[in-house]
Amino acid sequence: MSARDIFHEAVKASLENDGWTITHDPLTLDLADGQLQIDLGAERLLAAQRQNKQIAVEVKSFTAPSATSEFHTALGQFLNYRIVLKLKDPERVLYLAVPLEIYEAFFLRQLPQLSIEEYQVKLIIFDPEQRMIVRWQT
Amino acid sequence: MSARDIFHEAVKASLENDGWTITHDPLTLDLADGQLQIDLGAERLLAAQRQNKQIAVEVKSFTAPSATSEFHTALGQFLNYRIVLKLKDPERVLYLAVPLEIYEAFFLRQLPQLSIEEYQVKLIIFDPEQRMIVRWQT
Repeated sequence: MSARDIFHEAVKASLENDGWTITHDPLTLDLADGQLQIDLGAERLLAAQRQNKQIAVEVKSFTAPSATSEFHTALGQFLNYRIVLKLKDPERVLYLAVPLEIYEAFFLRQLPQLSIEEYQVKLIIFDPEQRMIVRWQT
Repeated sequence: MSARDIFHEAVKASLENDGWTITHDPLTLDLADGQLQIDLGAERLLAAQRQNKQIAVEVKSFTAPSATSEFHTALGQFLNYRIVLKLKDPERVLYLAVPLEIYEAFFLRQLPQLSIEEYQVKLIIFDPEQRMIVRWQT
């Protein structure tokens, strides 16, 4: 499995261990021109439910050589997906899932801290080896 | 020259043809941890001045196979750069430069339209062959 698939599966298992049911893998979102669905196919969004809460989860492995570059992409995807969810599935809350090691090495720096606050990015910090959610940061 | 360099040079020439002086190429922005400067080196921001107006310009060629994927990255970069400018150079206004052909083929779709409005992304639409700015969209 690729690093991306390993993290994707680890996030699923972490959510299930936290009492969530995976309802869509991938979650597809259609806009009028159909464009987003194609790209979401390559960057699968997960959807999960627990009691009456519904979430969508973007999983990023941050395995690229530059965490900052990958963060730019993750942020843009997150904010674009949030626009589509607001239109198509407004009850569902979007999260970005980040491995604990990357959170500690990168997300505590100034730029990601400022950016996450400014753009209200919600995080799920997970431990891919323990397959556990370490923290929900909202 | 790579496509990225060709567009970068075309944006510079278009700004100069519009009466702007290029003041920084690249414009470097330092945060406390120095991380952003490294990545801006790979994705050079331009800075220009005309009378008392100062701008920074992110140039995107949109030559990737998926314009939507490249748009995610462009949006994330734009919004992160805007955060750093707000801290370090608050008078300077950030623009995303987009070739006319890509603007017409992609940016009129629903997702980029919604996203540009929601996140207040300012565009410079330029013609790389004529080396002219076609429109400022603010």
